[in-house]
Amino acid sequence: MSRMLEEIRQQPEALARTLAGELRRVERFRRLMEKKRPRLVVLVARGTSDNAALFGRYLLEITTGIPVSLAAPSITTLYEAPLDYRGALVVAISQSGESTDTNLVLERARESGAVTLGITNEARSSLARIAEHVFLVRAGREKSVAATKTYTGQLLTMYLLAYALGGGVRIAELERVPEAVDAALELEPEIDDLSSRYRFMRNAVVVGRGLNYANAFEFALKLMETCYVVAERFSSADFLHGPIALVEQGFPVFAFAAPGKAWSSMNEMLAKLRGLRAEIVSITDPGNRDAEACSTKIIRLPKRAREILTPIPYIVPAQMFAACLAAQKGLDPDRPRTLSKVTRTL
Amino acid sequence: MSRMLEEIRQQPEALARTLAGELRRVERFRRLMEKKRPRLVVLVARGTSDNAALFGRYLLEITTGIPVSLAAPSITTLYEAPLDYRGALVVAISQSGESTDTNLVLERARESGAVTLGITNEARSSLARIAEHVFLVRAGREKSVAATKTYTGQLLTMYLLAYALGGGVRIAELERVPEAVDAALELEPEIDDLSSRYRFMRNAVVVGRGLNYANAFEFALKLMETCYVVAERFSSADFLHGPIALVEQGFPVFAFAAPGKAWSSMNEMLAKLRGLRAEIVSITDPGNRDAEACSTKIIRLPKRAREILTPIPYIVPAQMFAACLAAQKGLDPDRPRTLSKVTRTL
Repeated sequence: MSRMLEEIRQQPEALARTLAGELRRVERFRRLMEKKRPRLVVLVARGTSDNAALFGRYLLEITTGIPVSLAAPSITTLYEAPLDYRGALVVAISQSGESTDTNLVLERARESGAVTLGITNEARSSLARIAEHVFLVRAGREKSVAATKTYTGQLLTMYLLAYALGGGVRIAELERVPEAVDAALELEPEIDDLSSRYRFMRNAVVVGRGLNYANAFEFALKLMETCYVVAERFSSADFLHGPIALVEQGFPVFAFAAPGKAWSSMNEMLAKLRGLRAEIVSITDPGNRDAEACSTKIIRLPKRAREILTPIPYIVPAQMFAACLAAQKGLDPDRPRTLSKVTRTL
Repeated sequence: MSRMLEEIRQQPEALARTLAGELRRVERFRRLMEKKRPRLVVLVARGTSDNAALFGRYLLEITTGIPVSLAAPSITTLYEAPLDYRGALVVAISQSGESTDTNLVLERARESGAVTLGITNEARSSLARIAEHVFLVRAGREKSVAATKTYTGQLLTMYLLAYALGGGVRIAELERVPEAVDAALELEPEIDDLSSRYRFMRNAVVVGRGLNYANAFEFALKLMETCYVVAERFSSADFLHGPIALVEQGFPVFAFAAPGKAWSSMNEMLAKLRGLRAEIVSITDPGNRDAEACSTKIIRLPKRAREILTPIPYIVPAQMFAACLAAQKGLDPDRPRTLSKVTRTL
């Protein structure tokens, strides 16, 4: 079995440990934020962590109303432009805490008067040292190059950040997330079976919208790095603004079909794709009865959840799909060609 | 000849007309911004206009130091979350001015106290009515579904906005841009010739960094909508964080290889791709002598320019490449399957 699959299975435990371990720190940060509410939140990250940041962007704006910007690190690292981050909260997210560009952006932000928060899996990393405040992802050492348990751990810290900023996220609800992930893990045999159908897939599109938009990026990244599938990622709205022209009969589209506010937009787009005879694989749950009609294949999570809580359980079948498909293709998802675990870029 | 190619050729004239026609309005807006400097700029757009916004993000942060956020429209349109845009300048960019979601975000922003600016090709559009201030792109009616002259027109308005915000962009420099585009248009026969080599290309990656990052998105979009090539787009840094695993011998990579601050990062990545025996097509100019060594094919613009002024001339050969490749494939770039000129999404 791949380490990737092992680490996917460790997620309920890792999430529970992170939640239990970080609550006191989060409460302290919440009290600070009550006195010093930021006018802007800036999230800075790369790779999988950047996908977690993209989720954070939606979650924080929706729940707190504070504008969020996803940093473009090159503006600091290459162009050396001083940004006016006074009154801003700047949050760097990095599994290893050793991402050179992310760390540099955080340092400059701190110098320019921003409150800084580092989110990392490594308590003794450079990021943990540089940031004024730290939330730890307590996922345990991640050995596979393909990040899984640190991604869901980072998503969880985004909820904790929303809570700290007064965003109406309840801790009691978060405590039920590990259970939902446990239930999702039961789908493994079914997903392994399904994945064989895609053995010869070379291209794909992954779509999501709103709170599950970031999951489309993360699923596509997993398909690219572990299965070498050229996987595009779009919101259902952006997809209609041009790229849908790609789609011909049998073109594979993977969709995060969570019930809730984003569903009507997704539904409309999937119906259009169905009309083009695309092959549609929808990840959904018992709360959505319309996904079947516009899908070729369905992956249905056993438990329904409020839309805002769907992103963590919804990425789990996608992670398993990528790990199983890599195995079907005879690839080792733990050691993708060309990649190493810590990537340093400026 | 396709309308797309006709409209590509109209760009020098369209740019000169926009610049001459908008200067007074821009000066007026500049005086307003001097009194009322925004603490945040929010850019909202879809499709090609969103690629212009992505350029605006880099240009504005680099030249003005004001933080920029690219809006996620669904937060307003689907989740109906009220965002705190007090003290912000919110800018909507839309060719038609009839993009439902973009317009809704602008309306809500105006209600919540933001200064609003609309950038559109249509003086009598809904956007021009809703926005407090307007910059017109004077590109003339765009008939091809594939946007070209409105994209470069929108890029030009981003420079005008940077100028209005005190960003050290000089109007005299902008006045030389139409000339640079004229020179780029001379490459058409060479590019037509080159494009035949890619007749059977199904997948590709387009990379850019910093000021030319948005051009990678725009080139990829043109390849998707007019040539049905599954074209991914990445910054050279993000590409190294996972997706580079896709690359095998002969994998086609298109690179914006402008000289300047982003080049060392691009150069490093291209050298790595060269080692993987990818097929690399670099768009560059006489100011960059290192691109040859790490490229399979070179498209060299006749004139060199300061890095900050490269994005408009650099997209022109990419637009011509997409139009010529579509013709090689026997496709009509003016009428991509499934698309219409105005896309309405919520």
